[in-house]
Amino acid sequence: MVLPFDSVAIVGVGLLGGSIGMALRAGGWEGRRIGVGRRPEALAEAREFGAIDEAMDDLAQVGSEADLVILATPVRAFEPLLTRLAPTLKETAIVTDVGSTKAHIVTQAEAIVGPHRFVGSHPMAGTEQKGVAFARADLFEGARCILTPTARTEPLVIDTVQAFWKALGMRVLQMTPDAHDEAVARVSHLPQILSSLLMALPDDDDLSVAANGFRDSTRLAGGDPEMWRDILLTNAGPIIAAIESMKLSLKGLKELVEAGDAEGIEALLTAARDRRRDTVARQHADHRVSAE
Amino acid sequence: MVLPFDSVAIVGVGLLGGSIGMALRAGGWEGRRIGVGRRPEALAEAREFGAIDEAMDDLAQVGSEADLVILATPVRAFEPLLTRLAPTLKETAIVTDVGSTKAHIVTQAEAIVGPHRFVGSHPMAGTEQKGVAFARADLFEGARCILTPTARTEPLVIDTVQAFWKALGMRVLQMTPDAHDEAVARVSHLPQILSSLLMALPDDDDLSVAANGFRDSTRLAGGDPEMWRDILLTNAGPIIAAIESMKLSLKGLKELVEAGDAEGIEALLTAARDRRRDTVARQHADHRVSAE
Repeated sequence: MVLPFDSVAIVGVGLLGGSIGMALRAGGWEGRRIGVGRRPEALAEAREFGAIDEAMDDLAQVGSEADLVILATPVRAFEPLLTRLAPTLKETAIVTDVGSTKAHIVTQAEAIVGPHRFVGSHPMAGTEQKGVAFARADLFEGARCILTPTARTEPLVIDTVQAFWKALGMRVLQMTPDAHDEAVARVSHLPQILSSLLMALPDDDDLSVAANGFRDSTRLAGGDPEMWRDILLTNAGPIIAAIESMKLSLKGLKELVEAGDAEGIEALLTAARDRRRDTVARQHADHRVSAE
Repeated sequence: MVLPFDSVAIVGVGLLGGSIGMALRAGGWEGRRIGVGRRPEALAEAREFGAIDEAMDDLAQVGSEADLVILATPVRAFEPLLTRLAPTLKETAIVTDVGSTKAHIVTQAEAIVGPHRFVGSHPMAGTEQKGVAFARADLFEGARCILTPTARTEPLVIDTVQAFWKALGMRVLQMTPDAHDEAVARVSHLPQILSSLLMALPDDDDLSVAANGFRDSTRLAGGDPEMWRDILLTNAGPIIAAIESMKLSLKGLKELVEAGDAEGIEALLTAARDRRRDTVARQHADHRVSAE
């Protein structure tokens, strides 16, 4: 694996950060893998798992030594981290992140470190598991990564970060931050919301009738509440729009049921089944697809 | 396996009907397993798979020979079937069904064959697959069956049908038809509806961002549109109520997101996660739970 830099700083060495470190080593990259975090035990654990080579807690030192900085902490920590990193970054350093909402983050990062050195990333890999103990060198292999440059992003930054994710085996796609956030609101955040709301709806007696369908439909509700709280708060606009769309869809189906419109109901269900077969089901057969 | 009758007629030998026949034989029951249907090829196939011993297409003959009649066709066929069966049934014959909505069916069946010989059943087993080729002797083992007697149902009928499903390895629970329908509207029909509506919402570009969460959340949308159309039409009232509840839940969450209420959002997501862990996830660990 040949990459145009000598050191990568991974800020937050959990499932995603740790997997980046492991993938770099597994790919034969020989540069410095610097793990950054506040908890010495977490960094020691990351070294034991082979995810990083060295640990740092001083952001000024990180800024002066790293060629590529990857933010992999919870999203709410990005602003203070960027603020402390910005004044110390090397002239040529590039910064990206792994956050699953983008417009909010990209606006912050462009304001703090500048579009000449930042581009947003959303590597769509991971599971409901947390922590470096679940990190894997092949986590990104074949999975999708969305890169979200703006009109102001330096082309060299885009090319470099794109090459980075491709080196980790990802299929990279570019979208604007807004288009990304609207898309994930519909295909990721809304399903997450519905899963939690579905789980709250039945009373205890109802649950004795719950079977596979309910178990699978509420699987996402088992996800980390803090992480999803932050996603909902940083992608409020598109999520509100997606909720409104779903309320309209429910209203439409309710009217078909009230009218006893057998043809209309069957047409709706058939269209959904066929669309799934032609898109998601096929996509999954073609590629490994991973959770966000 | 000892059962208080000598012959069972299975009307509609598909996945569920075929599995009943196979389970009876696998359990060592030595009575007659009569397969009933209109298509001779389907009955011949059911015999080849060992699901039935003999085939019949004459409902008058079925009525005069069977001790237990199990309706396992699509729900919309029940009314004409019951109407033709009723005048010919033996004095002691008992009738049940495997339909996944109950109030509508039980009202029909009590009117046509009477509460002295009918009780509704909902064996919650099966998959998205259709046809006797997917039938299995162990399909019901450990799965839930809901029996839906009314105040008018003959106790002997309840006891007999309950013993029948227990002999097949099912965990039997009794509910009124209305309580059953309201419960399945919330834990089965609403998830099915949301899955189909979710599948219709994103545009094609959005789907390039779809990952595991979306794939799993739309899995139910791959189900049979005709079967689900009938379920929606025969359980309209409870389904409309469940849709209204979900619209209210969405409105509530939307207001939290609009208000930027971090605590409120986290509390909602945490309650859903904890409830899942304490119910559905635990239930699944304790028992095999099957799809309806």
